[in-house]
Amino acid sequence: MLKLKTPLLLLTFSVLFSSAIAQNSLKKIKVQGNQFVTEDGKVMVFRGLNVADPDNLHTKGHWEKAFFQEIKNWGANIVRFPVHPSAWRKRGKTEYLKLLDDGVKWSTELGLYVIIDWHSIGNLRTEMYQSDNYETTQKETFEFWRTMAKHFKGNNTVAFFELFNEPTVAGGQLGTCSWEQWKTLNEEMIGIVRAHSNDAIPLVAGFNWAYDLTPVKENPINAAGIAYVSHPYPMKNGGKPWENKWPTDWGFVAKKYPLMLTEIGFSGAEEVGAHVPVISDESYGDAITKYTAEQGISWVGWVFDDRWAPRMFSDWNFTPTRQGKYFKKALLEYNSNK
Amino acid sequence: MLKLKTPLLLLTFSVLFSSAIAQNSLKKIKVQGNQFVTEDGKVMVFRGLNVADPDNLHTKGHWEKAFFQEIKNWGANIVRFPVHPSAWRKRGKTEYLKLLDDGVKWSTELGLYVIIDWHSIGNLRTEMYQSDNYETTQKETFEFWRTMAKHFKGNNTVAFFELFNEPTVAGGQLGTCSWEQWKTLNEEMIGIVRAHSNDAIPLVAGFNWAYDLTPVKENPINAAGIAYVSHPYPMKNGGKPWENKWPTDWGFVAKKYPLMLTEIGFSGAEEVGAHVPVISDESYGDAITKYTAEQGISWVGWVFDDRWAPRMFSDWNFTPTRQGKYFKKALLEYNSNK
Amino acid sequence: MLKLKTPLLLLTFSVLFSSAIAQNSLKKIKVQGNQFVTEDGKVMVFRGLNVADPDNLHTKGHWEKAFFQEIKNWGANIVRFPVHPSAWRKRGKTEYLKLLDDGVKWSTELGLYVIIDWHSIGNLRTEMYQSDNYETTQKETFEFWRTMAKHFKGNNTVAFFELFNEPTVAGGQLGTCSWEQWKTLNEEMIGIVRAHSNDAIPLVAGFNWAYDLTPVKENPINAAGIAYVSHPYPMKNGGKPWENKWPTDWGFVAKKYPLMLTEIGFSGAEEVGAHVPVISDESYGDAITKYTAEQGISWVGWVFDDRWAPRMFSDWNFTPTRQGKYFKKALLEYNSNK
Ligand SMILES: [Mg+2]
Ligand SMILES: [Mg+2]
Ligand SMILES: [Mg+2]
Ligand SMILES: [Mg+2]
Ligand SMILES: [Mg+2]
Repeated sequence: MLKLKTPLLLLTFSVLFSSAIAQNSLKKIKVQGNQFVTEDGKVMVFRGLNVADPDNLHTKGHWEKAFFQEIKNWGANIVRFPVHPSAWRKRGKTEYLKLLDDGVKWSTELGLYVIIDWHSIGNLRTEMYQSDNYETTQKETFEFWRTMAKHFKGNNTVAFFELFNEPTVAGGQLGTCSWEQWKTLNEEMIGIVRAHSNDAIPLVAGFNWAYDLTPVKENPINAAGIAYVSHPYPMKNGGKPWENKWPTDWGFVAKKYPLMLTEIGFSGAEEVGAHVPVISDESYGDAITKYTAEQGISWVGWVFDDRWAPRMFSDWNFTPTRQGKYFKKALLEYNSNK
Repeated sequence: MLKLKTPLLLLTFSVLFSSAIAQNSLKKIKVQGNQFVTEDGKVMVFRGLNVADPDNLHTKGHWEKAFFQEIKNWGANIVRFPVHPSAWRKRGKTEYLKLLDDGVKWSTELGLYVIIDWHSIGNLRTEMYQSDNYETTQKETFEFWRTMAKHFKGNNTVAFFELFNEPTVAGGQLGTCSWEQWKTLNEEMIGIVRAHSNDAIPLVAGFNWAYDLTPVKENPINAAGIAYVSHPYPMKNGGKPWENKWPTDWGFVAKKYPLMLTEIGFSGAEEVGAHVPVISDESYGDAITKYTAEQGISWVGWVFDDRWAPRMFSDWNFTPTRQGKYFKKALLEYNSNK
Repeated sequence: MLKLKTPLLLLTFSVLFSSAIAQNSLKKIKVQGNQFVTEDGKVMVFRGLNVADPDNLHTKGHWEKAFFQEIKNWGANIVRFPVHPSAWRKRGKTEYLKLLDDGVKWSTELGLYVIIDWHSIGNLRTEMYQSDNYETTQKETFEFWRTMAKHFKGNNTVAFFELFNEPTVAGGQLGTCSWEQWKTLNEEMIGIVRAHSNDAIPLVAGFNWAYDLTPVKENPINAAGIAYVSHPYPMKNGGKPWENKWPTDWGFVAKKYPLMLTEIGFSGAEEVGAHVPVISDESYGDAITKYTAEQGISWVGWVFDDRWAPRMFSDWNFTPTRQGKYFKKALLEYNSNK
């Protein structure tokens, strides 16, 4: 229904390019009740690893298949790409899409599913953010998902679109945003994705830096086939003991909807990169892997890098850090049981 | 009531310039019931031609009185200037106003009324558009009308301000916009124009690329003295037969308000520039000119150019295309009967 | 609760810098009922002077302690810094903060309180403004107050944050803004400031270029500890006689809330810079100083400069103009009585 008013000889090649990347060697993932299932009905629990921003990895010279092979070697079945708005703008849409296409291709070849994560932190309503690299606008965020939806339509590897990494008003320093307003913004993004007939599962987070999902009880997102997200770092909501907080702060959601903890991780207080709210020890690892296994909740460790914190390895021989050792073992064990 | 806080010696010449262009040799057009009338009470039905963007015409070397003379020769009594937001920004306000001033001067001399059309396509609420040349913001759109209102105040030739060419959410790909939200945006623009005591008649379009006016029945724009717009290209809403669609999709509006089809046109499937939704033949021309004549509806053919499609002529000797022949004859016949 | 995901060795020095400027030699100002009081309970009525934009003064070579000494010599106990959005952007945050830090330091040394004023004129809702130097966005305005709140936290000299100089829709030329919408924008800004534990008193203005406070009667700003503002220039609302207008247009507010006239001033019709709405004579000075003294209303004369109008002095020997003579005498008399 679009009318051509551009000069007659001008053609658009976007259709050709966007369909070329669809490589459907992985089974399509769908939402069924409170679970993720493959198109042929197998229940999937995802456990995997976050990487640094693809732009950053490319600059460091590590955006290559060997890196994805190592993620696979650690036992992951999913990888999360945190696309920082500042990196997206710096590299530009065309060049950044090439990075994503490469990462998705290697993931497909290795049998890893992919989460594309719009990695902002702050208040999308007032467009105020925690720091400069998280700066974006509603318009840019909507356009990002329009671009992703069009570009990865029909690609089963890109199974998840995490709409906005960590919503927060930072105690009011970033202005106000009600759950109702946040819900409306998410529904707008989901509508844009689905109007492109892209079946990626939208992942929706709550406030307090993607920790708090309590409003979902009374007022869930008005869209079927989505999943929720929490980032339950060890020091959130007062920290240990976690058992009496996790179920009511976010875990209850898993009774009704698929739930994915797209960032978990810890750092010993003595380690480089230790900071609030991640300081803890292996007891956190035990608690979170046990609770999620019992509830069928998926998780993704933060972060498979030597610099971003808390880090999983200390050098590019992939020498595991303390949490690296913990999560490598956990990934290999839990995912081999599936 | 404006306070001067600028350096004392700084003066503004804008008042001098803006009044200089007011050339009132054409009679002022007003809304009376469901009709356009001249200030002395003569009913007017407008039938004319769209041109390409004035910026584009100027670049091609055709923004000259001879071009307007040809429009007049074809029988038009009105000409529509589609100002693309991208062209407006590229050329800049001052230089673009010079183009408009020239076009308005030649139109005045030839007795042609002018529609200034903010030629965007998309969703002004989310600020998402069909393609780059249609990109704008609410702020830029409001400022455009503030500028037009101030600049053309008292100019009878510039009888119409078409507030936004083709509103559409593209099936949700551009996000959502309710009729109520669209109505509010139009009322804001109308308020800005009229606060400048500019009496140009605001033209308001509906969704589906300015095709659908059904919400006007229950919930019209809250402003007197306006007119509505539809762009009923031949393939809209399933195409032929049109007779059972046009009256209910948009034609009913003409019983109560003035109505102007600011874009109509067709292209044989064999012609250059043929595309959805314009492919049809002379039977479309017969149907639309007959229906509009019966209902007193004004119309403007798209597009008096050799490149933009569907085109009216094939070279700058103004050799008519198939639809060019059709509309040249129609304009000369219908407008001579008035 | 902020997570560090930046490279491990990157540190932020902002905490060091922002606390360095807190010099608490002046007593903290608070709101108590309809009055300003010092932290030890002394009622304060502020009477002082506006300066030109600090950026402008610095460019002219007059942003120096001697200039502030002269303000003190004229009897002021407060000085208002009108930060124009265009100047803020041009100089940049870091450099502009240095100007403010210098001005605040000299003010502290001389015992002058400071109002930081976001000096825009227009409609913050539609983001349409009176002229280019007042252009800003909601986002930029919110970020400005976020920056001010963080930077001047704990600084008693910076006792007032005037959130938006002169709100106006210019009779609709700048679109619409209801009092409810304006109230919401102010409450958002107040929330941002207070989330940073900054105790500066927010100053809130009404429409008609900060003249009209009538909506406060039925629908005050929903925040404790704030004060209201009016700019009752002599020709507002029809001009003289003022006695039957001031109490109902804005003066009534002082019965319930602290009120500060952050701009008053006049110019003889014969003087350079005379313009609507400031043309008047000493009778205006007598009326406004008497009425404010009776009601305990604070005021700040516009403007302690040789170029901005109406000006207080005619050269940089600080030779008083007609209103300069008037206000120098008024400041010295009224403030010495306190
Ligand atoms: Mg929060
Ligand atoms: Mg995070
Ligand atoms: Mg069109
Ligand atoms: Mg106003
Ligand atoms: Mg003022």
